[in-house]
Amino acid sequence: MRAGCAHLEGLRPVALLTDFGLADPYAGQLRAVLARLAPGAPLLDVSHNVEPFAVSQAAFFLAASAPFYPPDAVFLCVVDPGVGSRRRIIGATVGGQDFLAPDNGLLGLLLATPGQTAPRVYDLTPAAKQYAASATFHGRDIIAPLAARLAAGESLANIGQAMDPAELVRPDWAEPKLRPDGVETHVLHVDRYGNCLLSIRKDFSPPHPVTTLRLTWGQRRPLLPVRIYSDLPPDTVGLLAGSQGFLELAVNQASGAEALGLRRGDMVRLLWTE
Amino acid sequence: MRAGCAHLEGLRPVALLTDFGLADPYAGQLRAVLARLAPGAPLLDVSHNVEPFAVSQAAFFLAASAPFYPPDAVFLCVVDPGVGSRRRIIGATVGGQDFLAPDNGLLGLLLATPGQTAPRVYDLTPAAKQYAASATFHGRDIIAPLAARLAAGESLANIGQAMDPAELVRPDWAEPKLRPDGVETHVLHVDRYGNCLLSIRKDFSPPHPVTTLRLTWGQRRPLLPVRIYSDLPPDTVGLLAGSQGFLELAVNQASGAEALGLRRGDMVRLLWTE
Amino acid sequence: MRAGCAHLEGLRPVALLTDFGLADPYAGQLRAVLARLAPGAPLLDVSHNVEPFAVSQAAFFLAASAPFYPPDAVFLCVVDPGVGSRRRIIGATVGGQDFLAPDNGLLGLLLATPGQTAPRVYDLTPAAKQYAASATFHGRDIIAPLAARLAAGESLANIGQAMDPAELVRPDWAEPKLRPDGVETHVLHVDRYGNCLLSIRKDFSPPHPVTTLRLTWGQRRPLLPVRIYSDLPPDTVGLLAGSQGFLELAVNQASGAEALGLRRGDMVRLLWTE
Repeated sequence: MRAGCAHLEGLRPVALLTDFGLADPYAGQLRAVLARLAPGAPLLDVSHNVEPFAVSQAAFFLAASAPFYPPDAVFLCVVDPGVGSRRRIIGATVGGQDFLAPDNGLLGLLLATPGQTAPRVYDLTPAAKQYAASATFHGRDIIAPLAARLAAGESLANIGQAMDPAELVRPDWAEPKLRPDGVETHVLHVDRYGNCLLSIRKDFSPPHPVTTLRLTWGQRRPLLPVRIYSDLPPDTVGLLAGSQGFLELAVNQASGAEALGLRRGDMVRLLWTE
Repeated sequence: MRAGCAHLEGLRPVALLTDFGLADPYAGQLRAVLARLAPGAPLLDVSHNVEPFAVSQAAFFLAASAPFYPPDAVFLCVVDPGVGSRRRIIGATVGGQDFLAPDNGLLGLLLATPGQTAPRVYDLTPAAKQYAASATFHGRDIIAPLAARLAAGESLANIGQAMDPAELVRPDWAEPKLRPDGVETHVLHVDRYGNCLLSIRKDFSPPHPVTTLRLTWGQRRPLLPVRIYSDLPPDTVGLLAGSQGFLELAVNQASGAEALGLRRGDMVRLLWTE
Repeated sequence: MRAGCAHLEGLRPVALLTDFGLADPYAGQLRAVLARLAPGAPLLDVSHNVEPFAVSQAAFFLAASAPFYPPDAVFLCVVDPGVGSRRRIIGATVGGQDFLAPDNGLLGLLLATPGQTAPRVYDLTPAAKQYAASATFHGRDIIAPLAARLAAGESLANIGQAMDPAELVRPDWAEPKLRPDGVETHVLHVDRYGNCLLSIRKDFSPPHPVTTLRLTWGQRRPLLPVRIYSDLPPDTVGLLAGSQGFLELAVNQASGAEALGLRRGDMVRLLWTE
């Protein structure tokens, strides 16, 4: 049984994920709309510092974070380069959690998480039309009010139209690509400590041991699979199943991204030896 | 009827707007004082990333944001270059919302919003004297405790002395200036995406169509009035009534500020053709 | 009597202090775990922008901030360069507040605050072993669940094993060093305005008046003890007992750090005249 007062009132927590940053007043306006329409609902910031328009980074943040949030949380996700165009607004239910986002791949990694309950997906575009919205801030004027309705007890099935998950926009960065000599993967995120988060789940089983990293432009580096950062000798690049559910490249007490010259969005290849 | 538990207790939400940033512990201390003196009052951050001492930017954030906040919110606004000097601390009531700030123009744009209820303004300086305050952090030691009293149900009329709004400090950036060939305006804010927010309300009606932008130092650029960013052809500067209640200069999928060489605080002139 | 609804439920507020930054999803995951395990407990961010691994800066933030937080707050402090190694996890009780941190000096300034209740200190390492933890994120997987238990009413004495405070890791930056001609001190933090916070408490009584500042590499500057920033003439370096409980070096309307070429972690000496 949950004891929080918001829950006595039946209000679900709302988690916010955007690329608005924390300097502009936009993230605050999102929280304000929720506080106005669903007063008492706990507000939890996943992050507002997704890089502008970086859908793949937001998708990683969401897939890595959702398991740690309350099992009844509503996620309001706004990274929306296509705002004002015809892109859909969608909702998804996975277990007891609900997710709202533009249909641009933001939910792509989350919905592909191995072993989870099959998601149900809804088109919210028709429901969105009832809101008098600014042409440029659908996050505040449409998606936040929809999140407030979910927080207050409405269901996605009630608001949206069920749709086939296969119809969702499918980003090409969502899955690593198997090659004869290894696996090609996308750097989804470089964190504050310089660790490079890859688009490979931590339970990925390569057919052969991974021992070499090839950067996009051809350079090769030996790669040491380790359990924790401090297992790494100096100047050695490690491959870890870190705390985020995805494999990461790291250097102990230093920036892996700097050592390797890697940036978010780069492609790298992990090579195996037979 | 509002359902949040805080409201069962009668505690109003408090919105915070400062130039403290989020690295220093100052914003946290402000929230801590509110959590201590008005426990249960919902705390909402408007922004803590106003540039240091940038009163006009804070004034814009406030005027753009207040309509989206709960109708009974208390706003605690601290951008205070004159802390420790003789500047007044003031309060204002507009509709059901209350605003606390140093008297330096921070409330200037908000109080001049067209069509709103006439504000009532109060001098809180005498009330402030009862607080044992550090000489350098009145936001935490005076204004936050006053905000906590409002959150708990006291009224500004009870705490302060009514004063004539005409006595408030009036900043020169609060209103655009009409010229024979156009209107001179201040860049109040450059947002994360490079949009330049101007000191012109979105419902401003120029006597003639606006088609040209003149930068302060004389350069002229054609200007295309549009409804949404994606209506703009490449390399074209648009003029939009965006989501913030003020006109903005923008370039589609790129930074308008960078394209124009504009920074916060710059003056520009919109020219019209007869 | 406290009126907040969380307190009707008996849930203590939890204050968070980390070096995770606000871009990565790590701070959000910490809050998420607390919202899941102690729903309704108010969450207060002290700061998440401690520089990576800067234990002394975090120690300063904590000692400067704790007095302003609710008297029953639980502090969850995670700056943990030794994560995954054998360092202890500790808890401390001071008055009604509880503090959780790795044993690396983070609580050093707080526990040495003059005039406070004698702290009781506990080793939580045995209690930590019951948590299935990622090897790299003990903050989320061990320390946050422990904080949630404190928020929900358990006591440190119940969870941990009492230990002698003298056994804690003692950082060398925690106390200024008296010299025949003055006092040697550490720049604990440079704030957003360029003020340099020193490791000297504001009630420090030098045996002679302090009038000169000597930077580490020998340069000397006259120093003017003042009460507020605006008491300083232009280009003069002031010594203030600011709002944070520690002495600071400052220049009026400009950055003291820039004027002096000082950075966080630098040593300086305050010299006195007889």
